[in-house]
Amino acid sequence: MTAEMFPKEKTIDLRKKHIGPSCKVFFSHDPIKIVRAKGQYMYDENGVRYLDCINNVAHVGHSHPMVVKAGAEQMELLNTNSRFLHDNLVQYAQRLQATLPEKLSVCYFVNSGSEANDLALRLAWEYTGHKDVITLDNAYHGHVSSLINISPYKFHQLANAEQSKSVHVALSPDLYRGNYRQDHPDPATAYADDVNNLIQKAHEKGHKVAAFIAESLQSCGGQVIPPAGYFQKVAQHVHQAGGLFIADEVQVGFGRVGTHFWAFQLQEDFVPDIVTMGKPIGNGHPMSCVVTTREVAEAFKNSGMEYFNTFGGNPVSCAIGLAVLDVIEKEDLQGNALRVGGYLMRLLEQQKEKHPLVGDIRGRGLFVGAELVRDRVKLTPATAEAQDIIYKLKEQHILLSADGPHRNVLKFKPPMCFSEEDADMVVEKIDQILTGTLNKFYYEYYSFFTDIEKALGLQMPSTVHTENGTPSPQSLWHSQI
Amino acid sequence: MTAEMFPKEKTIDLRKKHIGPSCKVFFSHDPIKIVRAKGQYMYDENGVRYLDCINNVAHVGHSHPMVVKAGAEQMELLNTNSRFLHDNLVQYAQRLQATLPEKLSVCYFVNSGSEANDLALRLAWEYTGHKDVITLDNAYHGHVSSLINISPYKFHQLANAEQSKSVHVALSPDLYRGNYRQDHPDPATAYADDVNNLIQKAHEKGHKVAAFIAESLQSCGGQVIPPAGYFQKVAQHVHQAGGLFIADEVQVGFGRVGTHFWAFQLQEDFVPDIVTMGKPIGNGHPMSCVVTTREVAEAFKNSGMEYFNTFGGNPVSCAIGLAVLDVIEKEDLQGNALRVGGYLMRLLEQQKEKHPLVGDIRGRGLFVGAELVRDRVKLTPATAEAQDIIYKLKEQHILLSADGPHRNVLKFKPPMCFSEEDADMVVEKIDQILTGTLNKFYYEYYSFFTDIEKALGLQMPSTVHTENGTPSPQSLWHSQI
Repeated sequence: MTAEMFPKEKTIDLRKKHIGPSCKVFFSHDPIKIVRAKGQYMYDENGVRYLDCINNVAHVGHSHPMVVKAGAEQMELLNTNSRFLHDNLVQYAQRLQATLPEKLSVCYFVNSGSEANDLALRLAWEYTGHKDVITLDNAYHGHVSSLINISPYKFHQLANAEQSKSVHVALSPDLYRGNYRQDHPDPATAYADDVNNLIQKAHEKGHKVAAFIAESLQSCGGQVIPPAGYFQKVAQHVHQAGGLFIADEVQVGFGRVGTHFWAFQLQEDFVPDIVTMGKPIGNGHPMSCVVTTREVAEAFKNSGMEYFNTFGGNPVSCAIGLAVLDVIEKEDLQGNALRVGGYLMRLLEQQKEKHPLVGDIRGRGLFVGAELVRDRVKLTPATAEAQDIIYKLKEQHILLSADGPHRNVLKFKPPMCFSEEDADMVVEKIDQILTGTLNKFYYEYYSFFTDIEKALGLQMPSTVHTENGTPSPQSLWHSQI
Repeated sequence: MTAEMFPKEKTIDLRKKHIGPSCKVFFSHDPIKIVRAKGQYMYDENGVRYLDCINNVAHVGHSHPMVVKAGAEQMELLNTNSRFLHDNLVQYAQRLQATLPEKLSVCYFVNSGSEANDLALRLAWEYTGHKDVITLDNAYHGHVSSLINISPYKFHQLANAEQSKSVHVALSPDLYRGNYRQDHPDPATAYADDVNNLIQKAHEKGHKVAAFIAESLQSCGGQVIPPAGYFQKVAQHVHQAGGLFIADEVQVGFGRVGTHFWAFQLQEDFVPDIVTMGKPIGNGHPMSCVVTTREVAEAFKNSGMEYFNTFGGNPVSCAIGLAVLDVIEKEDLQGNALRVGGYLMRLLEQQKEKHPLVGDIRGRGLFVGAELVRDRVKLTPATAEAQDIIYKLKEQHILLSADGPHRNVLKFKPPMCFSEEDADMVVEKIDQILTGTLNKFYYEYYSFFTDIEKALGLQMPSTVHTENGTPSPQSLWHSQI
């Protein structure tokens, strides 16, 4: 256990005084103080251990000794900018390139996913000479101003949001809640046609499309898995309009999806024009990368503007990045993501069978979402219930989050060393909570209804039974709301 | 000496293959490979030592053991995001705040100067509800798209640059080469009036000004020291228009100016509304900060949009930031900057007396510029000569750079442990080169003139003598060009 510098109350006071109030903590009414972490576990100031199901940044496990060693040794030796030659930079670029399709061969090293996505836009603007960007609904691509513009997840939060005229929001290719669902004969084409419609409308206004940008799997947007063939069809439309396809792998890259190293590779034989990487790339060290084709890189160069990033590609960041790649390989973390992710999905599917609140289980590898609904037909988002689960899990020392446009999707993206035992533990707790939650809502419903009933002198409705025989407050809810 | 992974040629080949061609190396025809560094010295793959006069990022000296230790120890313990409470974050914010005027009390931690300046713009836009930004000519504020827009240093490089209608470029308050010079009775007012004119013109077009942004001392813009009172007068105009004053301390903060910790403090009693920090803050570790007032921070929060930065304010970055502050204090590096910077200025002033090419010496602490001109009246920039000096110094294992709009200002911004002996060494070499350069230009001039003369059948002009008795090719140049 590590000594604290301040008692928790003092930490909270200083934070209120000196840290921007827009910067939120988890569990704001009783935030957690974490003082150390190892693997998939975090420890608070009292030595209490939390299971981390959400930290996709600590990709190879918190404070992995190989990563720490690589960083510390290089810091001791040299940390300078990339205007000097250094072998770490070129070796790292070569190693990253080896994980990608051959035509994605030119790297730009930057410091964050936001810097990466902003640079991706600059590359696309310069290469195409066009201005407009097509983004997906509920997308989040970063916090710098150019990316707030293309992040409906963010700009929908603003009361007086004014959407840029050069940004077009396409339907999220969500097969559960979106416009075209599992029962649609060809959702990939239908969603891609929506992108094409936006392109045509932009053309009608005299606009031209520089890029389509999408996370290879939407994360904040609600753990959305696009249908097979969607990216290829979108790319056809976008290329025809002279634009580029930017695949944002900031949250989902580096083997997380299990079957492939990059999530865009889930779409067979698909190759984007630009790939952006971030979060897991340095296991928490601030670094990031943009990879593109020789053609795009040369066009950017021909603009005449040098690109210099003070910290990007420094020898320490590259040493850390190399160590992360080594650990992924050495510990077969991609394989682990495939195995444990599959196991977790099966456990969650059982929860779906058991609890009507669990509407959908979807995911690839250790990128998994469980969408909670009060009604499996109307898909009424179970937002409060999702929050309730998150808070109750926290009390039981498990860290999980809920996201998506309705904040009703339980989001699993743990460090890649997550084990089957960890999956057992979290799902068991969820099971217990869901049982409790059902009871709670059941009772609340009845007490609510009883009050109204009494007021109006009405009779209670007959209880609806679900497949597993227990009265379902959800089905009662949707028969009323 | 550290073993190389690749021979230098292989490093260069891999770099050409895998690193964006817009990312330039120093001394492109024969770049340097640096494998380790300590204090103000860098070492190449053959163990050759270079004196570093330019690296303001390695602020407390390359690979400072206290900084390395702080980073390594924290990496081993925990590196996670600021949604968990951590004492490093609040302690660091408190320590930074203590260096600033009281009203600058709220911090946002980010990863780079670019992220910091972009966030500063977002704060100003949100607080004021206005859109327009006034920036200085030749300014550089970062590489993300919003900052390219306000960086004439960058957008002037573009062939087809289209200046944003909401960006207004004010005169650089340059007393040597600008519109109002040393001989002007009140250059501070004159330059501030130019800003006010831009505000009035913006108002006439129905625009409103969100912010004025300037480096406290212009760096890439040519080591420009604004006249006393300029910032106060600008702030009056900008505040009257409802805008904010953003002081960019990314290059010049953390005691570099010697007399003060922040360069904006050179302007007596002046307090900006937002300060951005970067480069030296983490001695090379990717980190950065924006500090503002409670009022601005609350307005930003009231927009309803959370601000989250994945890596910003992580415990490792904060541990490193704290160590940098400790070293500055413990080793009295601000005092060293004052002493050695003053000494360096005096040595350079002697060069100015000796060599007509040296037109102006200006600076504060260890932020010093020597502007080279071919003509002290017309101020014809001695761009090629500046490049020549830089290259010749490199051959003698001294790293210096030339910057400013004409790339004719020798720019000193060394690690803060730079010594008087280092200053002696670099100025001695410059003296030797200037003498050589003079000779070279003298001979080239004569041979050039002789060729023309021969071709045209003309006579040579009579040699002009300078104060120290040697014929001056510069004075000859300006009598011809």
